[in-house]
This record gives sequence, structure tokens and C-alpha cells, in this order.
Amino acid sequence: MAGNTFGRLFRVTTWGESHGPALGAVIDGCPPRLSLSAADIEAELARRRPGVQAHATSRREPDKVEILSGVFDGQTTGTPISLIIYNRDVRSQDYDELRLVFRPGHGDFTYQAKYGIRDHRGGGRASARETAARVAAGAVAQKVLDQEGVQVLAYTLELGGVRAQKIDESAIWDNPFACPDPEAAAAMEARVQEVRALKDSLGGVVQVRVRGCPPGLGEPVFDKLDAALAAAVMSVGAVKGVSIGAGFNAARRLGSENNDPLIPGGFASNHAGGILAGISNGDEIILNAAVKPIPSIAREQQTIDLKGQPRTLTVKGRHDISAIPRIVPVIMAMVRLTLADFLLRQRAIQ
Amino acid sequence: MAGNTFGRLFRVTTWGESHGPALGAVIDGCPPRLSLSAADIEAELARRRPGVQAHATSRREPDKVEILSGVFDGQTTGTPISLIIYNRDVRSQDYDELRLVFRPGHGDFTYQAKYGIRDHRGGGRASARETAARVAAGAVAQKVLDQEGVQVLAYTLELGGVRAQKIDESAIWDNPFACPDPEAAAAMEARVQEVRALKDSLGGVVQVRVRGCPPGLGEPVFDKLDAALAAAVMSVGAVKGVSIGAGFNAARRLGSENNDPLIPGGFASNHAGGILAGISNGDEIILNAAVKPIPSIAREQQTIDLKGQPRTLTVKGRHDISAIPRIVPVIMAMVRLTLADFLLRQRAIQ
Amino acid sequence: MAGNTFGRLFRVTTWGESHGPALGAVIDGCPPRLSLSAADIEAELARRRPGVQAHATSRREPDKVEILSGVFDGQTTGTPISLIIYNRDVRSQDYDELRLVFRPGHGDFTYQAKYGIRDHRGGGRASARETAARVAAGAVAQKVLDQEGVQVLAYTLELGGVRAQKIDESAIWDNPFACPDPEAAAAMEARVQEVRALKDSLGGVVQVRVRGCPPGLGEPVFDKLDAALAAAVMSVGAVKGVSIGAGFNAARRLGSENNDPLIPGGFASNHAGGILAGISNGDEIILNAAVKPIPSIAREQQTIDLKGQPRTLTVKGRHDISAIPRIVPVIMAMVRLTLADFLLRQRAIQ
Amino acid sequence: MAGNTFGRLFRVTTWGESHGPALGAVIDGCPPRLSLSAADIEAELARRRPGVQAHATSRREPDKVEILSGVFDGQTTGTPISLIIYNRDVRSQDYDELRLVFRPGHGDFTYQAKYGIRDHRGGGRASARETAARVAAGAVAQKVLDQEGVQVLAYTLELGGVRAQKIDESAIWDNPFACPDPEAAAAMEARVQEVRALKDSLGGVVQVRVRGCPPGLGEPVFDKLDAALAAAVMSVGAVKGVSIGAGFNAARRLGSENNDPLIPGGFASNHAGGILAGISNGDEIILNAAVKPIPSIAREQQTIDLKGQPRTLTVKGRHDISAIPRIVPVIMAMVRLTLADFLLRQRAIQ
Repeated sequence: MAGNTFGRLFRVTTWGESHGPALGAVIDGCPPRLSLSAADIEAELARRRPGVQAHATSRREPDKVEILSGVFDGQTTGTPISLIIYNRDVRSQDYDELRLVFRPGHGDFTYQAKYGIRDHRGGGRASARETAARVAAGAVAQKVLDQEGVQVLAYTLELGGVRAQKIDESAIWDNPFACPDPEAAAAMEARVQEVRALKDSLGGVVQVRVRGCPPGLGEPVFDKLDAALAAAVMSVGAVKGVSIGAGFNAARRLGSENNDPLIPGGFASNHAGGILAGISNGDEIILNAAVKPIPSIAREQQTIDLKGQPRTLTVKGRHDISAIPRIVPVIMAMVRLTLADFLLRQRAIQ
Repeated sequence: MAGNTFGRLFRVTTWGESHGPALGAVIDGCPPRLSLSAADIEAELARRRPGVQAHATSRREPDKVEILSGVFDGQTTGTPISLIIYNRDVRSQDYDELRLVFRPGHGDFTYQAKYGIRDHRGGGRASARETAARVAAGAVAQKVLDQEGVQVLAYTLELGGVRAQKIDESAIWDNPFACPDPEAAAAMEARVQEVRALKDSLGGVVQVRVRGCPPGLGEPVFDKLDAALAAAVMSVGAVKGVSIGAGFNAARRLGSENNDPLIPGGFASNHAGGILAGISNGDEIILNAAVKPIPSIAREQQTIDLKGQPRTLTVKGRHDISAIPRIVPVIMAMVRLTLADFLLRQRAIQ
Repeated sequence: MAGNTFGRLFRVTTWGESHGPALGAVIDGCPPRLSLSAADIEAELARRRPGVQAHATSRREPDKVEILSGVFDGQTTGTPISLIIYNRDVRSQDYDELRLVFRPGHGDFTYQAKYGIRDHRGGGRASARETAARVAAGAVAQKVLDQEGVQVLAYTLELGGVRAQKIDESAIWDNPFACPDPEAAAAMEARVQEVRALKDSLGGVVQVRVRGCPPGLGEPVFDKLDAALAAAVMSVGAVKGVSIGAGFNAARRLGSENNDPLIPGGFASNHAGGILAGISNGDEIILNAAVKPIPSIAREQQTIDLKGQPRTLTVKGRHDISAIPRIVPVIMAMVRLTLADFLLRQRAIQ
Repeated sequence: MAGNTFGRLFRVTTWGESHGPALGAVIDGCPPRLSLSAADIEAELARRRPGVQAHATSRREPDKVEILSGVFDGQTTGTPISLIIYNRDVRSQDYDELRLVFRPGHGDFTYQAKYGIRDHRGGGRASARETAARVAAGAVAQKVLDQEGVQVLAYTLELGGVRAQKIDESAIWDNPFACPDPEAAAAMEARVQEVRALKDSLGGVVQVRVRGCPPGLGEPVFDKLDAALAAAVMSVGAVKGVSIGAGFNAARRLGSENNDPLIPGGFASNHAGGILAGISNGDEIILNAAVKPIPSIAREQQTIDLKGQPRTLTVKGRHDISAIPRIVPVIMAMVRLTLADFLLRQRAIQ
């Protein structure tokens, strides 16, 4: 069973390669009578687009989306919503060398091993370009969340070892790193310049907070909300770890420290990160995602070719220094898609 | 859509509450003509059973399994395999107080919020007892993995802040902590005694290593192997974080440090943890799981009752100091189930 | 993907062979807080049990069901409901000859072809015995339908060429053929005696009527309500055709004859059988199922053995003359399971 | 769970309304390294396109398909295949009246009941136009079937009461009715002219034959091959009944007449229609589908409007006299999609 569909009731199927004519998403199971326009979606896509900042890729997709079905008179109809985003500004010749050589840290080797064939241009399906469809679909999911007053916030908690020391939500989209701490953002900028000079790349940590999530979401025992969120976020390329609430820190705490006492109206603390026994408890959901450094670096690397022979490779083309901050709206989208799905799943048994 | 089925092709549905008459699993999609006996399964269940060690729960289930269907003349037939484990030694009266009160850190509050009803006895479906069915099913999954020579190893990397300094596989099941470092195991014992005196509990980290996994397993873009493993392991109660390979450490590395160079026959390092772009690369798969301290502690805690009124609670009954080591075979089972499923999924496209 | 799970939200997984220790069903996704007891289920199982009538098999299962999970204080809890029915009165030695020989009209040959192994005793998984689990699950599904006032009626429309000329619902369970026309039932009895003397068997037609189904159930374009009902009913062994409303007669009508005019409050006729464009229209749902004659006959038949060599076979053991009427509650159960599932699916988007 | 995805391993998701900008299909799970071009697909679409025959609709879609992803260097890559067909020659103003009025025999009323909103233009998602995406996907499925030598044949067995008396396969696509009997085709033509004069419409029966299907396909007990085929074909608008092999005739036969004796190398007869106990037996699969007359007729009909008030309606726009023969390639496509899916499912357990 192929893996290009996400969700059980609010279902998204994405398609498209980096250097094909287009990519897109089909959303099946979206409730009817939600207002939806291309502009709603493009506002989210804009967050994923490379900005003016020096560290960003120079590929500039306008990322206009077209809604091909499922919307009538500005409202969803309950039928599948097909979204298409055309690929523009494609320079496939940058990738000619990669037809025969595997880039370290990329999916080149594993796609070849799995399918016996691969579209090498720009990483094909394994390209970060694929995430545009996720962001577009996530914007539709947010329409479902809006019905229940659920808000999803995501930001850069850490980049290249520089960590935000405070969470000022209003600052997030005001700096080129989606960082909620303007001072940390400045330090991140310095770190990026440093690493750029080394022709190297950086990783970091993205944090998500969900507010207004009603208690009761999550389907034990296998489709627990935290399990589903972990899969959703780990399915984003470059993410190597996911934790909820206290996460790996919980491993070193005593039970008396880690338990959140219940008090009238809620909880006295939130080490659980808003999820108990796989079900949302009404508190803020907090999730951290570890993002690895981008594997495409301008330094020479050791690798092999299709015949298994040793080769050296210096990756050409236009590449970011870090998946952060462009990965921030992608992770946010995956959380939105997960929550929209679980909201519908909970409705079914009520 | 309820969440008690795991897997797409190798599918396991579990059922049962802690204090009901029995619990079990139905496995659908197991290939035919694999040898299978109750003894094969009970050998795995024995690892999950509380041992002689002082820190373990005093509930002693014999955990005999009965195979009710799907096996004929000692071989699987391709039809559903129904496994049943009867609950014995149940002391439901220990839990009478919990009918009206929510235990901090448990699913009591969230089950009530989700379903409007709950079986409070021993945690009902949210009990760790549920994982016996997972372990039983995992033993069947291993039969599929055996066909391909895939081995799954799991052990305690860290308990209560004490970390294994070496990985001696032969030592794992020779100490009461499933720890691959006998010296660390001794230190863990000391830490457990210390915390027992405090009437408190401990968390830790479980590590999994998969050997012999062929390249090509994993279904991008949403059912990536790492995403599926993350969900599988996070679906185990008490797990609050999952990472692959370098995990959260990758967030602080440079790309040149984190990339694994390809060399003839494989990779020169394994920061990726055996998975690239969501597909196994043939190298060892390495996964870490953060396990929170057991929330049931003998110290008085602040909580609320069904009516939302404040209460204090001292949890009675028989409880472990840590989910470790009994969680180790459970996590191992979830990894087995995931890999068996992806092996079958890969066969379908070959 | 193996096929022992039915439904998307109200999901039933069945297991068990004819001559194994037991068979059962696990229901996942049943809404919480529905009253449910073993007696509720056994009342339905009683309809499937062979009666005192001469034509019925002499195997007499008491068909007691045990609820192993998912019910607390007499109410469903939202967790999986595990049902078990033990097999009693099993005479496996009747089937020894069938280890090596394929019975015509049965699944012996195809199970062997598919799995390379089969439990030959009593047909194993392919036995009609398997349907007990469906009927049990259907009784639980009816609890969901009760919430919405949906009633499912099924009866024998035709047996061995004798057709009911009127539908007297109160008569259905008062004769040994589940026939709504007492006079036709008498003629059926005569036909059965005639065919018994020939050592042969009979087929017939079962009709289902659903009342009180709200409009709006069904998920175009592939999971249309009629498509799902067709699959549900065709999945019952012995069913070779399914039609909705006018069915095959519609193929010979003019559009002006076949269209059902809309009138205030509903429709002026019901050739559609209550379903338009795959969605229930609020009118009575009418479905016909063609049931083939039972293939196990006491006359000598031509066949082959496991090695492909020609053989003759006279089927021994205890067999009915017709799958009717025991198939009637089974078909009713499949319709109930389908409707319960679609009711929950519709709730999710409302 | 919405119903716009078909299949478990070979999965097709379709989208699009009759009068939207385009419609399409996303195929996920197609094995890699199959040759595929737009021309392969357009050859099948051409069979669905209205021809020069007098009875066909006057809407003339060129039905060019564009492959947007999943194919590289003329071969499938294992990633999702996105197909798009633009709608041209759309005259939405023909449908203005239908915004407020429900057409008898159509989905207008039920879509409104289900979703509370509908795209009334040309039937929206409920239009036969939707089936173009099915036919396109079916052409891809045939590539999988080609690997195993499976051929699917479909034709008009009966139209307006005129039945083919012989099956001359070479004649099927040489007459405007996809009829395998040229003489019957001539009689069908006369019947069509007759009914056209009455401003009425006709139904009929489509028959499918599958050759070269290996034994072993089908997943008991719920996903039996016949159950899946029934759902697949019944999901096509206008189909009101499906039968396998002897179908409803089997209901009137004796067991001794209906059983197919096994002989070395196969079966002596084929009343089973190639499926036993839900699994293909290696013989020809035979399926009949009852097609109702097209509900859009030029005669005045009684109906109601959105407010439930009585109205009369004379359907305008361009309409066929019968869904036959344009439905023939659609039914063929659904059978192809089903078989491709079950072939992959069987591979997984082998």
C-alpha cells in the first residue's frame, strides 16, 4: 500500500515531482459548506516560499494554487477538492550529474533501491518541493479547525545551536527565521553567515503549540493522538525526532515531578504536552521536532554511483543553508491535517 | 475510525481491558505456511512478565496464550489468527476508589472526556496490561521477519538517569533491567531502590536496533518507514518521544558532519539510523524512545473527581517503579509489527 | 491486504474456522454508552440456528456468545467489543476424505490455490459456520441503527422456484422458511421434500427492506450505498447476484417508467429502491440477493484430488437442502453492518 | 470517510465535476517500471467518447489526458500518477433551471440531502462525466494486468430488450452499441430510433468476461473477489444489479445442475463464473450488470423544488438515449481496477 494519502476521514492525497509540470493534492472528506478560496491557501504557501533573506534558495516559485474541484459558489461541497500548483523556474540541467550518482543524506540511493527507477531531477518526489502540497492541504484543514476554534502555532525553537529564550508569538513572522525571540533570531543570522562561509548547512528544532483543542481527540490504542502527530511530523523530510510535552526530558524525571496535578478546570502543569493516554486533555498540545541539517552542501563529499563505484560529488544547484524556517509551515500543516482528521473521527462516535 | 487495528497488510486488531475476562489479538494478513505455536508466542510474553526483581509489580499473570484460529497442522493458513490471553489474579477492589477520581498522569480523565464512560478497574483499556496482546502479535510478526533474516533488538539505554556505556547484547536478558551494560544495570538497581524509598517512580530511554533489514522498505511520502516506526512506538503508553539515528543531536550538527558518505557496499557512518527519505537503506535501523516515569506513585497527589471537585489521591494497588524493563519487549513488538507490514507492502510492488 | 475486516468506522473483524475451538468477532468503533448484553446477540443467533424442521442440518450449536471486552456496567465503552462463540458438537472425522479431494462448488480448490494450505475440516474458514460471527456483530450494529430508528427486514422471497406472492411481515419467523407468505411457505416445504428425495439441493432469492433510513447515507463515487450493500451481501457465501430496487428489471424499462417522480414529502414510486446516485433518498431500501443451491449434495459428483487426478465424490456429513432460510439473518446482519458504518460516516461530516 | 478512493494497494482517487475546469485521477501504488503514455490512456477514453452515431450526446469532449507525475522516461516510477482531463465545450447555462429543482432519477435530491449544497451544473460530481477519470485509471490498471496476461472484455449483452444471441468479440467495437452480435446491433438501432421518437430512454445489460485471471485472487471473507467486483460495478451510476456466473438463474437450479465438476486442468462447466468462495478459480470470470434507463428524458416529469413545492420539469441539455454503450468501457475499467488491486494483494502474501 503506497503512502501518498494521509488521514482517515479528512484524507489528503498528494502527487508531483520537483521538476514535473505540477504538483498537487486531492482532499477527500472535507465537510461541506466551508468557505474556501485560492487566496486562503496562497497565504499559507507564502510562508513556505523563500523570502528575501540571504540564506534562502534562489528558486522563486510564485506558488499560485488553482482549485479544480470541490468548491462551488465559494463553499466546499463535500466532494473532493483538487488543488494544483504548477512548477515554474525549473532548471533541470543542474541535476544532470545526479542521474548516475547518489547524493549522501538524500533519498537518491533508497528510491533507486525501492523502485529500481527514479526521477533524479531535483530529487523528484523526495524533494522538499513536495511539501507545497502539504501546506496547501493544511490550509484547508485549518478551515475545519476554525469551526472548533483550534489554533496551531509553529516556530523555530533552535537553529544551529542557537535557542529562543522567549516565546513572543507576534515576532514569529517578523524575522527571516520564524523565531519567536528577536534576539535569538539575530544570533541565528550570524550563525547562518558563518556556516555559509563553510559551504555547510544547519539543523534545528521546530516547536508546535496547539490551542483550543477540545479534550477527547485521539483513538487508542494504536491511533493515539501523539502517535499520529509523531507520524505526521516525522513524515516531513529532514525530521529525525519528535517529542510531546516534556519529551526526552521526561525520561530523567521522577513521577512526582512529571505528573500534572488535576485542578478544577484543568491541570496545574503541562509536562504531558496536552495528551494523556493518547487522547487530548484540553490543555495546550506541545510538540518538538528535530530537523537535521540539509544534506545538499557545496563541499565535496564521498559517494558511489549507480554501479556501486566510488565517486566524489559537489552538489550544484540552489540550496538553502537549513530546512528551517521553510519547514515551519510544513510541520504546522501536518499538525493541522492530523487534528482535522481526529476532529471528524471524534464526531463519528458522538 | 477507531484505533485498535495496526498495519495495512499485516494487520493486528487488539482488544481487552485490564480487569475483563481476557484480552487478545486478531492478526489478519499473515502469510500462509509459517510454522507457529503457542510456545513461540509465550517465549516473548515471558519477557514482558514481571520477574523476580524487587521493583516489579506483584501481579503475576501466567500469560498463557491460546491460538483459536488461523493455524492448522502447526502452520499458518492465511486466515485470521486469533490469540487469547486470559486475565488471572485480578484484584478489582483495589480500584474502587478510582470510579469517581482521576489519577494524575493517567488516561482516566481523557477516556472519560472522550467516551463519557470508562472501565475504571486497573485503567481498563488504557492499562499496560493491553500491551500483552501487542507482544503476542509481535511474536507472529517475527515469523515473517525470519523469512528475510531481519532481527530486532531492544534494550534499556537509560533508566533514572543511569545510562549504559556499552552495548553487550548477550547481557541484555541476564539482568532485571534488560540493560546491555552489566555495570550500568547495577547502578540502575541502586537508583531503583533509592526511588522506591521515596515512593516515587522513574523514566528512561529504550533503544532499538534492527539488523538485516533490506533496503527499500517504507512508503513515501506519508508512510515513510521512520514515520511509521515513530507512530508505532509512540502508541505505547509512557513513550513521550521517538528519534531515529542521530535524532535530536542531528539538530546541532553541520551537514558535513551528519551526512553518511556512501561507499561501495554501504555507508561509512550511520547518523541516518538506517533510513533515508523514509526508506530503509540497508544499514542498521536505530531508534530511541523516551519513556516517562510511571504516573502511579504511592505519594499523595492533587486531583479532581468526576464532578470536577478537588481531591487528594494516594494510588493503591500493585505498581512498578518504572515501565522499564517491561516496556522493552513491547517496543520491540511494535517495531516487528511495523517491519512485517512494510515487508509485505514492498512485496506487492515487486 | 487480507479481507476479514468489514466497515470503515464501525469496523468488524471476524475470525475462526468451522472445526476450530471457537469463532468470533471484534467490533471496533462502536459508539459508547449503548446498552448491550449477550442476550441481545443470542436472540439474533437463534434465527440462524437450525430449527426443528426436517430440511435443516442436524448439527446443533447452542451458539452462546460471550462478550469479552468493550462493555462495562451493561454499556458499550467505545473500546473494542470482542465476541466469542465456541464450536461444539464438531465431528471432524466426517471430513477426513476431504483432506485430499476438492468438493465441487466449494472453496476447497480455491483456498488451496490461494494459500497452498487449507483446513479441510468442515470447510475451515469457508464454512457457513463463519457467518455466526457476522450475525453476532450485526446485532451490535442494530444498536447503532436503533438510535436513528432504522429497521432492517429480511425474508425468503423465493425458494426452489416457489415465490412469495405477498409480504406479510408478521408471518416471516412463524414458518421454517422465513417466508412472508404462509401459502408459499407450504409450497416451499413440498418442494424441499421433493428435492431431498433426489439427494439434491435448492437455491432461492432473499429480499431485504430497510425502513426509517434517513436520506444522505452513502459516499460517492466509489463507496456509494448501493455499491457497499452489494459488496456486503455478495460477501456472504452462496450469494451470486445482488440488485437494488427494480434491479435487472430496470434494464428493460423506459426512463419514463423507471423514474420515480418526486412529490412533497417523498417519491411517488420506488423503482430506485431507496437509493439515488449512491445516496439514500429516505424511501424504503429494497435489495434482492440470489442464493445458489448448496453445493454439498449426497449424489456422486465428478472431481479431482490434490494431485489433479480425477475422482468421484459423495459428500458425507450433515448438510442443509438450501442455504435458505439460515442465510436470511446473515444477509440482514450484513445490511445492518453496512448501514451502521454509513451512519457514522455521515455523522463525521455533519 | 469519503468515498472517492478505490482499491487498497492499487489505489485510485478521482476528483472533478461535470462543469468544473477539469477532472482527474491520482493513482497511488502502481508498480514501477511499467511503460505508460498519454496515448495508452486516450485509446481507452476514445471508447467512452460519444461517436458519430445518432443516439449519442452531442457534447464532444476531445478527452485529452495529461500525465502530471509518476512517469519518467516513459516508465512509471512507483510514485503517484496524476492524470488530468480538462472539461471543454461546457454549456452550464443549460442547467440554470436545475439550481432550484430536483430531476427525477438523478442525484440532485440526495446530494442536497447529504451535503446541504450541490453544484447543480450538469449534475456536478454525480455526472457521468466523472467516469472519464475511471476509464483513464483503468487504462493504467491494465498495464498491471498485462504483466500477468489478464484480459478484460466487456460488451452490450442487451439493450432495450434486444439481446445479443452470439458473442463475436471481433464485432464489439465495429457497431455503435458495443454489441458482440451484429444482427442484434441492428435491432438495437431500430429500438433506439423508436424510443427517441417517444422522447424516452432505454436500459440494458452489460456483460464482462475476464480471461487469463490466475486462480487465488480474492480476500475472504469480506473482500471476496465477487464482492469487490460487485461494489466496483455497482459504483457506476445507472447500474442497479450485478451478478456473477449463473447469477439470479442459479437461484432456480438444483445443486447437481449448478455445481461445476472439477476435471484435470480445470472445470467441466462454469456456472460459478470463475469465482468459488470469493476466490478466482482460474476459469473465465463472467459478470452481468443491469443498467437502468437514463433518467434525463425530454418528456415532462413531476418533481419538487428546493422548498419541497411541486413542479413540472422537462430536462433540457444534451442527453443520450441510453448509458449504453458509453458505460461499457467504464464497467470494463472498474473490473480492471479491481483485478489490478487484487493481483497486488495476492503478491503480498506470496
